[in-house]
Amino acid sequence: METLKGKISREIGTPALVVDLDAAARNIARTQAICDAKGIANRPHIKTHKSVLLAKMQRDAGAKGITCQKIGEAEAMAEGGLDDIFISYNLLGEEKMARLAALMGKARMSVAADNPLVVEHLATAAAMAGRDLFVLVECDTGRKRAGVETPAEAIALARKIAETPGLVFDGLMMYPPEDGAAFTNAFLSEVHAGLKESGLAARVISSGGTPNLLTLGSIEGQTEHRAGTSIFNDRMMMAAGFASLEECALRIYTTVVSRGGAERGILDAGSKVFTTDTGWGLKGYGFILEHPEAEVARFAEEHGFLDLARCNDRPKVGDVLTVIPNHICPVVNVVGSLVLTRGNEIIEHIDVEARGKLT
Amino acid sequence: METLKGKISREIGTPALVVDLDAAARNIARTQAICDAKGIANRPHIKTHKSVLLAKMQRDAGAKGITCQKIGEAEAMAEGGLDDIFISYNLLGEEKMARLAALMGKARMSVAADNPLVVEHLATAAAMAGRDLFVLVECDTGRKRAGVETPAEAIALARKIAETPGLVFDGLMMYPPEDGAAFTNAFLSEVHAGLKESGLAARVISSGGTPNLLTLGSIEGQTEHRAGTSIFNDRMMMAAGFASLEECALRIYTTVVSRGGAERGILDAGSKVFTTDTGWGLKGYGFILEHPEAEVARFAEEHGFLDLARCNDRPKVGDVLTVIPNHICPVVNVVGSLVLTRGNEIIEHIDVEARGKLT
Repeated sequence: METLKGKISREIGTPALVVDLDAAARNIARTQAICDAKGIANRPHIKTHKSVLLAKMQRDAGAKGITCQKIGEAEAMAEGGLDDIFISYNLLGEEKMARLAALMGKARMSVAADNPLVVEHLATAAAMAGRDLFVLVECDTGRKRAGVETPAEAIALARKIAETPGLVFDGLMMYPPEDGAAFTNAFLSEVHAGLKESGLAARVISSGGTPNLLTLGSIEGQTEHRAGTSIFNDRMMMAAGFASLEECALRIYTTVVSRGGAERGILDAGSKVFTTDTGWGLKGYGFILEHPEAEVARFAEEHGFLDLARCNDRPKVGDVLTVIPNHICPVVNVVGSLVLTRGNEIIEHIDVEARGKLT
Repeated sequence: METLKGKISREIGTPALVVDLDAAARNIARTQAICDAKGIANRPHIKTHKSVLLAKMQRDAGAKGITCQKIGEAEAMAEGGLDDIFISYNLLGEEKMARLAALMGKARMSVAADNPLVVEHLATAAAMAGRDLFVLVECDTGRKRAGVETPAEAIALARKIAETPGLVFDGLMMYPPEDGAAFTNAFLSEVHAGLKESGLAARVISSGGTPNLLTLGSIEGQTEHRAGTSIFNDRMMMAAGFASLEECALRIYTTVVSRGGAERGILDAGSKVFTTDTGWGLKGYGFILEHPEAEVARFAEEHGFLDLARCNDRPKVGDVLTVIPNHICPVVNVVGSLVLTRGNEIIEHIDVEARGKLT
């Protein structure tokens, strides 16, 4: 019987991004179960997979809605039938407000804001749509990504939202670091007190991140969680202690196209496939299932350079290898083409709808 | 009169990749003139722009043909009417050979090889096409990317190609480092001697790289040059001494969507737009025209973090900034959408044909 690797190589060619649909379904169910156990709604971030088909698998498993990071992602998802979408990003500008207004006619839209200008722009979208827009105040509780930096700013922005016609203050969102629960709870406690004084309340408390699923429940009053990576997992999620090798549902199949010197090997996938994120103390850029002691050491745009110094059994030219990349989200974004498999079978080869959306 | 920045922000939205067509045309003419002055054919690498329109501008300015790195790129270019294509990459596998054979019916195809297995596969493509396939031996002359590592291997592989029905030994290709001319010349000299003994000769000597245009002519007998980045240039090419600010023809327009703390600013473009290449001693990830003293310090996927510590005049939320990224090639690959401008006018908003080709 021909192996899956043989079929991929013969029918699809390498490099290929290969999804094990059964493993992805198990990952979806696992995230849903973690959320269910804590009574927290699951609102997965589709930035990881960018696919309507996979978003619907998440919805059908129990997700309350989805999270997007761009208007273009939300448009692709709404077009595909997803009807409860949170854009966890500051949106600004006339062109985006017109698109947001159009989206409000297709789905229940909520958005984040961390400054007054964004709130003013969002009001124009609500006016164009002639509907209420739900707005969450983004709070920076330690990661230093985006978000207001003090409870006082959060309270002031919530008041501004509540006072703006067409906008509904819907709650608070944050993306705390993995050790950020205590700081987040202290921050939120101050915000809640200030909101109460103003006669306001945060209906939604939204946190995010796949590693934060491990400590879900530690943020007081959390009502929703946005995890992206947990549908596929990757080398970083293995390093973070969230996922096992078997739980890495998306793998890059790549061919050794040259050996270079005795201790080198060259893959047909470089930085334009693997991308170059590092973190969690990882060395190199991928875990090679067939040669765990080999290192994906560096890249040219279309070449991946293997350091084989520690390998006894070295791959030869023509070998197809199976690699788990460091960070799966940017890989799917750049490639946008997924081979869906089940067991030994290729089910479908799809282009994901929200791949590489610029705006 | 509305500024170009205003038009981009209002009509297109940010982030946007904005090409100044006049600057790109000047860059194309400059590369052509450098090659013409040395009597070396210009075969630009389209991996930088991935666009048929821009490839045709290069051809019309005098380029002999084009270079691609993937079958998918070559297919997009052949479909667009480019008819002399060199794929400077080891191609392997049944699926790719069928596509290469189909391409041979549409364009004069030449390809690189650095090992016997690739040569054997290429022979099957030639047999399928019923035509001759032109093959160059890729030589590693110091960069340690791909390529045979010794003159003896180059000679042996050239012989194998010449002896293989359907394949024509067409010459040698290399991609030397910027200080690699002396080593390359010594390597080539040995190869030429060996080829002569076998009754063979390298018709084509192909070198590459934009910075190597500065020393074009230093590789003895060079007949062709493959430069990619020189059509747009970027922050690395400024650091390499190849390009001025005015010669950077593609810029990322991005909006400040949040300020975070006093010394921070957050752009609506992160690693999924800028990508993360570094090199040439550069600090940070982009040069901001309006705030040269600001640093694009780090990224989340959709957030770019500015370090404003050294800025007297700090950007505010809503400001649109113009940024030259470190390395333009992966940016175009992931984004794939270019706004073509001339002076103050938006000419066209195009999706490039060969964006993000996986195979």
